[in-house]
Formats: sequence, C-alpha cells, structure tokens
Amino acid sequence: MQIRLMQILTSLVLLGIAATGLAGDPLPSWNDGANKAGIMAFVTKITDEGSPDFVPVPQRIATFDNDGTLWSEQPMYFQLLFALDRVKAMAPEHPDWKTTAPFSDVLAGDMKAVMASGMEGLGKIIAASHAGMTADEFAQSVRDWIAEARHPTTGMAYTAMVYQPMLELLAYLRNNSFKTYIVSGGGIDFMRVFAESVYGIPPEQVIGSQLDASYQLRDGVPTIVKEGELAFIDDKAGKPVGIYRHIGRRPLLAGGNSDGDRQMLEYTTIPREPDDTTPRLGLLVRHTDAEREWAYDRDSHIGGLDTALDDAPKRGWLVIDMRKDWKRIYPERD
Amino acid sequence: MQIRLMQILTSLVLLGIAATGLAGDPLPSWNDGANKAGIMAFVTKITDEGSPDFVPVPQRIATFDNDGTLWSEQPMYFQLLFALDRVKAMAPEHPDWKTTAPFSDVLAGDMKAVMASGMEGLGKIIAASHAGMTADEFAQSVRDWIAEARHPTTGMAYTAMVYQPMLELLAYLRNNSFKTYIVSGGGIDFMRVFAESVYGIPPEQVIGSQLDASYQLRDGVPTIVKEGELAFIDDKAGKPVGIYRHIGRRPLLAGGNSDGDRQMLEYTTIPREPDDTTPRLGLLVRHTDAEREWAYDRDSHIGGLDTALDDAPKRGWLVIDMRKDWKRIYPERD
Repeated sequence: MQIRLMQILTSLVLLGIAATGLAGDPLPSWNDGANKAGIMAFVTKITDEGSPDFVPVPQRIATFDNDGTLWSEQPMYFQLLFALDRVKAMAPEHPDWKTTAPFSDVLAGDMKAVMASGMEGLGKIIAASHAGMTADEFAQSVRDWIAEARHPTTGMAYTAMVYQPMLELLAYLRNNSFKTYIVSGGGIDFMRVFAESVYGIPPEQVIGSQLDASYQLRDGVPTIVKEGELAFIDDKAGKPVGIYRHIGRRPLLAGGNSDGDRQMLEYTTIPREPDDTTPRLGLLVRHTDAEREWAYDRDSHIGGLDTALDDAPKRGWLVIDMRKDWKRIYPERD
Repeated sequence: MQIRLMQILTSLVLLGIAATGLAGDPLPSWNDGANKAGIMAFVTKITDEGSPDFVPVPQRIATFDNDGTLWSEQPMYFQLLFALDRVKAMAPEHPDWKTTAPFSDVLAGDMKAVMASGMEGLGKIIAASHAGMTADEFAQSVRDWIAEARHPTTGMAYTAMVYQPMLELLAYLRNNSFKTYIVSGGGIDFMRVFAESVYGIPPEQVIGSQLDASYQLRDGVPTIVKEGELAFIDDKAGKPVGIYRHIGRRPLLAGGNSDGDRQMLEYTTIPREPDDTTPRLGLLVRHTDAEREWAYDRDSHIGGLDTALDDAPKRGWLVIDMRKDWKRIYPERD
C-alpha cells in the first residue's frame, strides 16, 4: 500500500503540473487584442458543457490553408521552388532540357521566362518533378529536399518558416479536442512528407491537389505510381469539395489567407439553415509585415487577398494582422 | 483531504472495473480457433511495448470493405436496392420512365431485365437516384430509406444485417488504438449516413466510390451538388489508390470478402522492403453459411471470391469461415 500511495501522490503532482500548463496562455505568441480574444472566446464557448453553444467532440473539425497561412509563400510557393530544384537535379538525365523551354529557362536561372511560360510551362515543370515515379520515390525526393534546401532570401530551412502563432493555434485547438486539417491548393503528397513532424497533422488529415495515381504489383511489390494527369485541384471552389470528399462534414473553424480560401470560409461559416446558431469561426491571415515577413494582399500574384478581404466584415471573419497580432513570426531557433 | 481520498479510492475502483472489462473476451461472438487466435495474437504483439513487433499508435490503421465484409450483400448490394426504391419513389415526377428502359423495368419489377441492362442501365439508375441533387438532399434520402426499408427476404432493417463478430472486431481494434476505416466500392456518401451510428466509423474514415461534386453559393447558402459523372471507383486496384489518397499511409490490417479486395490486402500485407518485418494482417470473410446468411464464393456475381481465395495461403491471409468461426451472424435484437 505504501508504494501505491506514492504512485497516487506522484500522479497528483503530475496532474497539478499538467493543469498549470493548461491554465497558462495557450497562445503566447499572440498579442492581446480583439483577434486573440475572439479565437479564445470561440473555443471556450464551444467546449463549455454548460454553454448553449457547446459542440460535441466529433464535430470539432478545423481546416487550414497551408501556403501563406501556416508557412510563408514568397517569393513563390515553396513547392514550386522544390520543382525548380528537382528539374536542376534531374537535368543530367535529360540532356534535351538544355534546349527545351521551359526547362532550359529553369537551368539558365531565367525566372522571368519561366513565369512567362504560364500554366503550360509550369505544368510541364510540375509533371517532370512530380509524376512518372512511384509515390515512395516522390516522397523521398521531398524528404531529401526539405532537409537540405534553404530559402533564397532568408537562408532558412523551409520548415523553419512556419508561423509560430499558428503552431500554437493548432496545438490549442487539438488540446480542445479539435481534429486539425490542412486544406491546401498545394500537392497532397508534398505536404504529407512534413505535415506530421512540423504541424502535428497526420497524413490522413492533409487534403490537397492530386495527380492521378495507379496501383500495381511491380516485381511482386505493391506500388503506387504517380501519373501525369491532374485528378483534383483543391483551390477556390475545390476546397469545399475537397472537405466534403475527405471529411464528409462541415468544419467548425477555417483559416486561410487568400481569395483561394474564400469558398472554404463561406462553407465553414455561413449557416445552411436559418435556425442553425452553431458558433463558427473564419480566420484570414493578412500579410502586413514587410519587416519580419512580407506585406502583400490585393494585387499580389501569390496569395492575392481581395474579394475575401471585402467579404470579411459581413461574414464576421477575423482578419489577423501579422504585424500587430503576432509577437513573433517564426519559431525560435535552437 | 477526506474528499480527495474518497475520489482517489473511487478512481481505483473504477480502474479495477475497467481492467476487468479489458481482460474479458473482446470477441465473444467468435468461436475459438485458429482465426480468432490469429487475430488476437496479432493485436497483442503489435500493442505490447516490450515486443519487437510493437507498432506506434499513429501507424495502427485498419481498413475494411463494407458489402459482404461488415454487412450482407445478397441478393444484391443494398445500395442498389436503395437506388431501385428511389426510382420507384421518384417515378411520379418522371412520367416518361413508364416507357423508358431501364426505369420501366424497375417500375414493372422485372429485375431480370434490369440486370440485363448491364452497366449502362445500372449507371442510369444510379445517376437518377444519386446525382443532380445537393449532398444534403441525397443524405436525407438515404437516411429516410435506411429508417424505413426492409430486406426483401429477411424482412430485417438493413442496418440490422451487420455482422456482430465484425462489430466486435472493429471495437477491439479501436480499444487498441487503431483507426478503423471503411474502404468500399460502394458510394462514399451513401455509407457515411449510417457508418458512424452503426459501425462507430466517422465520415472522415469512410472511403468509397465518388461522383463528381461541385460547390456553389445557392441563394446565399453554401451548397455541394452531386454531379452525374463518376470521379473515382474505389474497387480492385482502386482500393490501394483510395487508401493512398485519403489516408496517405499503409494499413496494418485489412479485411475483405471478395476479389475486389485482393489488391487492398496485397497493398496492406506484402512488405515493400525485404527487411520490413512489421506484422501485417489480411482477413477474408468467406460466406459459408447458407442457413444463417448466404453461401457463395467463386462463381457469385455479387461478392465473387476466387483469385483472392487462391492467394490467401501464400499471402498468409486468414480465411474466416462464417459457419465455423462465428457464433452469431447479426446482433441480437432488443
């Protein structure tokens, strides 16, 4: 009995520590203000069993865009930087690329010409770097790149350019029994390589754009092959469709940063029935911090935020001002 | 302190009860034998932290076919019976169906002619009953049907024709921290209506065949519309692709009952690397019980089990013999 009592006392002490941790500020990198207060009031009321706004655990679904919402997206989407690096790495096996646009422009470092090649040129770059290989080979190429590559202007690892305040928000939601999802226009297979270790989001909670895939036994080994055709674009009106397909129920909270997220926020926050008073929350991260990150919105080619910003007041979406709302942008480095 | 001690003692008593519950037979509707023992030995070794075969919780993914694996599928897939009933219910709004095959055959109850209409005819029946409506309208039509409809030969509710031993297996796996999924050739939206209440499987863990879908604001209300084109067939080689798309990692256990599940079982159980010794389990439910359910395998048009049965010995898949292995087929009724 002596030992059992010790165990009980130890458990009580550990419980006490856990409780203290929970009682602390769950969003320490957020400045006090209407946005932080709005997020916390929302979570408090839907998790309070005594509240008329209480929402049962299975319905606590939160969906977040990735590029520009959970990590940076300038000077261009990081996945595109990956694709360009892959073209360079693969060039020795493709001698014809030296003289064939858009590959020749990539190899010459002529980014203006690459961007001018438009969807057709970029499609070829994506196909060359993402298709015609097994899923395992692709994942390994992303894993290798993520470990080595550095951002062209900050010199940081890409996985260090995630937003500390959003990491705290994801953890806060999970501590309140939310399932957190990524719903991104980016490639589902690209994000799944790092989403679990970087965001704490497992592969089955990552939704993104997809190429066709096929299955075969190759030399007796079960193999998924990534094919060249786009199967699904998880952007704009595709985001609610992606949520419907993968999750099959409506989120309670959605966060984005661009017009590509507008439909996801509509789908999440607008009541379907006039008498539905379930609290729902839409968040828009506005890039206002040219010093610590980037400042852009209405006219940006990457992450343009225009019609969604116009809609925010009437929809009740919180517009997060990076410069004012966030104490810190990226995690502290070790 | 007096109260706290009481709480501690109460907790200890409750813990004791819980432990006793866990120590009982988790699969009471399974007869003792090699299959029950094989399933339990598998779960025991992968959950034992001291075992070299221990598998961390996030990798504990189990996928199950639905028709013929979790519930019955004779005399035809229940979703097809739903579609036929829907055609009858919708007929007053479609006077032309009286003279247009295959609808006229459905209305005349000429099932031979309906089946003879082949994929083209059945496709028209599925399209009429599943597409051109909102996702909410479709879900409501399934909900209404499931509540009212009765099986043509047993007279039972369809949701009562689920296999009690499989319900126990699903619960046993979840009690051992598995995420349980359905991976079915059936329609994802059809199954999601009842999977949570009947199987304890939430919508986000249901994978199935899908029609195209679109999103729009309709009179200001966010609306998903089910379109007429098939977007994905989650059968045969489509099952590993569906798992790859939705889950993004390989299951540890897969259960099926027909050749349509063969590729899912291959994908789950065959090592990708020669040195991968992670334990993996494949299960095939074989319909051997003409008295309590149905008996069919190699030559059946519904749920044919032929090449997968041939592969079972070399792959190490457990072939469950309904008649011998299961004490009871369906849950006891209240």
